[in-house]
Amino acid sequence: MPTYKAPVDDALFLLNDVFHLDRYGNLPGFADASPDIVEAILGEAAKFSEEVLTPLNRVGDREGCKRKPDGSVITPTGFKEAYKQLVDGGWIGISASAEFGGQGLPATMTGLVMEFMCSANMAFAMYPGLTQGATAALAVHGSDELKKKYLPKMIAGSWTGTMNLTEPHCGTDLGLLRTKAVKQPDGSYKITGTKIFISAGEHDLAENIVHLVLARIEGAPEGTKGISLFVAPKILLKDDGSLGERNKVSCGSIEEKMGIHGNATCVMNYDGATGWLIGEENRGLHAMFTMMNEARLGVGIQGLAQSEVAYQSAAAYAKERLQGRSLSGAKYKDKPADPIIVHPDIRRTLLTIKAFNEAARALVTWTALQGDIAHRSDDEKQRQAADDHMGLLTPVIKGVLTDCGFANTVMAQQVFGGHGYIAEHGMEQFVRDARIAQIYEGANGIQALDLVGRKLGKDGGRAMMAFFNEVAGYIKEHGDEAMKPYVGPLGVSLGHLQQASMWFMQNALAKPDNAGAGATDYMHLFGLVALGYMWCRIVEAAQAKLPKANGSAPRYSAKLVTARFFMERMLPETATHLARIQAGAASTMELPDEAF
Amino acid sequence: MPTYKAPVDDALFLLNDVFHLDRYGNLPGFADASPDIVEAILGEAAKFSEEVLTPLNRVGDREGCKRKPDGSVITPTGFKEAYKQLVDGGWIGISASAEFGGQGLPATMTGLVMEFMCSANMAFAMYPGLTQGATAALAVHGSDELKKKYLPKMIAGSWTGTMNLTEPHCGTDLGLLRTKAVKQPDGSYKITGTKIFISAGEHDLAENIVHLVLARIEGAPEGTKGISLFVAPKILLKDDGSLGERNKVSCGSIEEKMGIHGNATCVMNYDGATGWLIGEENRGLHAMFTMMNEARLGVGIQGLAQSEVAYQSAAAYAKERLQGRSLSGAKYKDKPADPIIVHPDIRRTLLTIKAFNEAARALVTWTALQGDIAHRSDDEKQRQAADDHMGLLTPVIKGVLTDCGFANTVMAQQVFGGHGYIAEHGMEQFVRDARIAQIYEGANGIQALDLVGRKLGKDGGRAMMAFFNEVAGYIKEHGDEAMKPYVGPLGVSLGHLQQASMWFMQNALAKPDNAGAGATDYMHLFGLVALGYMWCRIVEAAQAKLPKANGSAPRYSAKLVTARFFMERMLPETATHLARIQAGAASTMELPDEAF
Repeated sequence: MPTYKAPVDDALFLLNDVFHLDRYGNLPGFADASPDIVEAILGEAAKFSEEVLTPLNRVGDREGCKRKPDGSVITPTGFKEAYKQLVDGGWIGISASAEFGGQGLPATMTGLVMEFMCSANMAFAMYPGLTQGATAALAVHGSDELKKKYLPKMIAGSWTGTMNLTEPHCGTDLGLLRTKAVKQPDGSYKITGTKIFISAGEHDLAENIVHLVLARIEGAPEGTKGISLFVAPKILLKDDGSLGERNKVSCGSIEEKMGIHGNATCVMNYDGATGWLIGEENRGLHAMFTMMNEARLGVGIQGLAQSEVAYQSAAAYAKERLQGRSLSGAKYKDKPADPIIVHPDIRRTLLTIKAFNEAARALVTWTALQGDIAHRSDDEKQRQAADDHMGLLTPVIKGVLTDCGFANTVMAQQVFGGHGYIAEHGMEQFVRDARIAQIYEGANGIQALDLVGRKLGKDGGRAMMAFFNEVAGYIKEHGDEAMKPYVGPLGVSLGHLQQASMWFMQNALAKPDNAGAGATDYMHLFGLVALGYMWCRIVEAAQAKLPKANGSAPRYSAKLVTARFFMERMLPETATHLARIQAGAASTMELPDEAF
Repeated sequence: MPTYKAPVDDALFLLNDVFHLDRYGNLPGFADASPDIVEAILGEAAKFSEEVLTPLNRVGDREGCKRKPDGSVITPTGFKEAYKQLVDGGWIGISASAEFGGQGLPATMTGLVMEFMCSANMAFAMYPGLTQGATAALAVHGSDELKKKYLPKMIAGSWTGTMNLTEPHCGTDLGLLRTKAVKQPDGSYKITGTKIFISAGEHDLAENIVHLVLARIEGAPEGTKGISLFVAPKILLKDDGSLGERNKVSCGSIEEKMGIHGNATCVMNYDGATGWLIGEENRGLHAMFTMMNEARLGVGIQGLAQSEVAYQSAAAYAKERLQGRSLSGAKYKDKPADPIIVHPDIRRTLLTIKAFNEAARALVTWTALQGDIAHRSDDEKQRQAADDHMGLLTPVIKGVLTDCGFANTVMAQQVFGGHGYIAEHGMEQFVRDARIAQIYEGANGIQALDLVGRKLGKDGGRAMMAFFNEVAGYIKEHGDEAMKPYVGPLGVSLGHLQQASMWFMQNALAKPDNAGAGATDYMHLFGLVALGYMWCRIVEAAQAKLPKANGSAPRYSAKLVTARFFMERMLPETATHLARIQAGAASTMELPDEAF
């Protein structure tokens, strides 16, 4: 059975020592997040994740969700009870607005709590995760009436939320979507069409399911400019807000898929379902994009989460499994063989994952904090800078954390040898579950294009320049002996990133294919620099802690070694990414389609 | 449904134009392999793979193998009929010795036929694949009596073979194995113990199953020097060779696993089973290693095979799926959107796989040909050189082709977006099936250690030097304008490989951890150089064909473009591998075990 212990200490180190949450007391809700409150909340989230959600992870995978002939869906054994505990603990609304029953705490904390829950049970954590996403869209774009009707129940968790975008013939290219909405005399709409891949589309965890649906209003323009966003609940509400009749939306089937079996991925049929417009007509994509940053950050967290739990299992196995002897002579002579953690190739594998996880957690925390600033600061300039950061880093986090997260689950599985391929150890489930995060919420190729095609040049490159300046400034200010082994390599890789950016400016305007052909490499190059910067920040904080660390000194020393491993072994890959980008699109685009 | 068309044309191009099979007419069996015979055989293998095996691939995955309470195992619907066709076609023994009923054709051809079958249905192809492995071990080390008894039936396919090595507490470290063998007065042995992960351990395809089993004879030394190899058939043979009583070996359970569900992975219980010694007492590992090169080459082929079929499916989907518009303006204006193959990032993905597949097929073919020379030449020097090549390249092929093969199935799946995650398209099965090839027949970390720790320095580095000399000589001789774009980059990467080799010589003797920490990177660096060399050979042959190619000119032109893509986009990674190797083991080994 996989082991999982939520990394509470690491989370507290990030919040308190690396990003100094206490400096943001002026932001609404942050004053309530005192160090002891934060520690208590993360401790409770850890307990819930470890004790309630972890044991259900394999159950969910084996049993999956079952659709009954009447279209209702049964979740795996134990999910209902666990969901009740989630609701009772108030976990869904910890960062939601107090106006609608939330606790108003920093979204930074929700990010960490979601990491714990996703590590423990990704399929389960998707139910509240989707609710949080739907809540955010409604909160920003919904009318007061809609907000009053839906938000309190969703934030409490008695109702869950979904996002209905994809149709059989369109996923990435939403301009092609066909689901229709016809306006009714009472101001509502009748929605008709088929949506596919709808996570948590139907289940038995909550009394109602609030579907957010993209559809085209009768007579609206073709393409992306004719798409509107609607709310269509599974059960219609009476005037007093209580549950009334069943709406004409139902689950037509559940997809048989590679992983996340504990979450029902539904084909949803809208047969003249009643819905209400969210925001303006034909501005549905705009409303969707508002919540995209948070949703994509959430998916990036899933990548990290699977990487973390897979790492913990692999590390435990490597310390336990006896096989062979250390190359430099037996280390555990009393045993019939050494544990495999003595082998350099096993350590290389574990350190590659560890060095990613700890920096990725920092990157997510830093970016979630910028999200809080963007939403809560009363200083417009500060808000804008934070929003720039969010916009720029979101595709990097989504793409890189899920690509690496998946690759890391595969590496962790490899540590188990043949046992990793067998279901009972749980490692192959991490691989199958992690895989989806590279695909949904915009496949990673789309994240790369978003970064290169949209985010880099936005507002004259303001966000990009701010990021480069911050990292370059940090390197300049931390040239001392203690930091040199870390900022030195970071400077080299930042140079690669800047050269790559320059190359795009010079070569991609006239030939956009040059940007497209280099986009994925650019995203990963950017990710490595961002993670490298995080390692420098972590090292700086760890060095500050070390002199007075006493018992926890090994934890901080380990940060320095892990950072060195990252600088020596992982960061150098930026050179290859740069070489690929500078190769341009010629050989990529030359073959005729039929040559493939 | 996945599409598969066996790459017969590419195989013929390799045999005829790149490696000139006709120049080896002096080797036994090669004279029979005239171009028209080869074409006919490959054509038949293609037909069988495409028409019989491909449709059963998903069936096998869904149904899996089922163990009945009496320990017998039922294979998926259709496997029995397909296996009969395989036997009737004489496919198992095409390269086996004519003395025992084989056709004696070059093993090079078996490699290509196995690629086709593995692409079509890897779980199915493992049944004959394991038989071929067991046959090889028996043929080399078995007594004349054992050979006469078993080989004809195995080569015909009426009996299948298995390899029983792994036990619950030992896989890589066979020195720990506990299965016991007790000598009987009649010269046979009673074998007792538990073996796990036994592919094709029990099934209903053949009348008998011939288990090769590693066990320790009572009183034998501990460790690897006390292990012997036995043959223990499922059903004992009467004196006339006909089937007699059931032997005391049985399938205790079938593993629930990530993929290759169509092949039964068994726990095998030996309860005083009767077996006969193969080769000498306590020399079992030596006998096993004889067949290791072929077996590992076979696993490398599985990696290529899954990559190839996943590529074909992804390419077909990319030409069909309409989504978005080309960055350089709509390409298919009559359609509601362009097919996604217009997008550079999709092409980058497809070309990365294509550029691997075609070079990997060349590498396998070249190496299989060396295997033929090693086994069939009457020139001792030639045999030795070929055997050196096999020994050196085998871990590279096993490790690199399965690592890249798996990564490629993941990339191909990504082309499908959300549809790739759904079982019905078959892409996620390729990922799950391909995954095992990185693990079995020696996990890839072990391949890397075999390469670095054993093969590099063997016989004073003779094999390594011969390989370097061949590649360097080729580069030198092909410096003309036409070849420069290809041999230029290859020269740079060969330089990286030589530097890395030198670094090991200078740094790993005193500190073996320096070799261990760099082994996986070295294996991939070696693989890239080997694949790059294959691309040069392919380009040379394609350039020679082009002037008179007429209708097939696009096929040869595509080779040149794909080779350029490889040189520009894939080969530069050798720099990163070198940097990682030269970083040494310090940061990898510094953390105490408990810091993980």
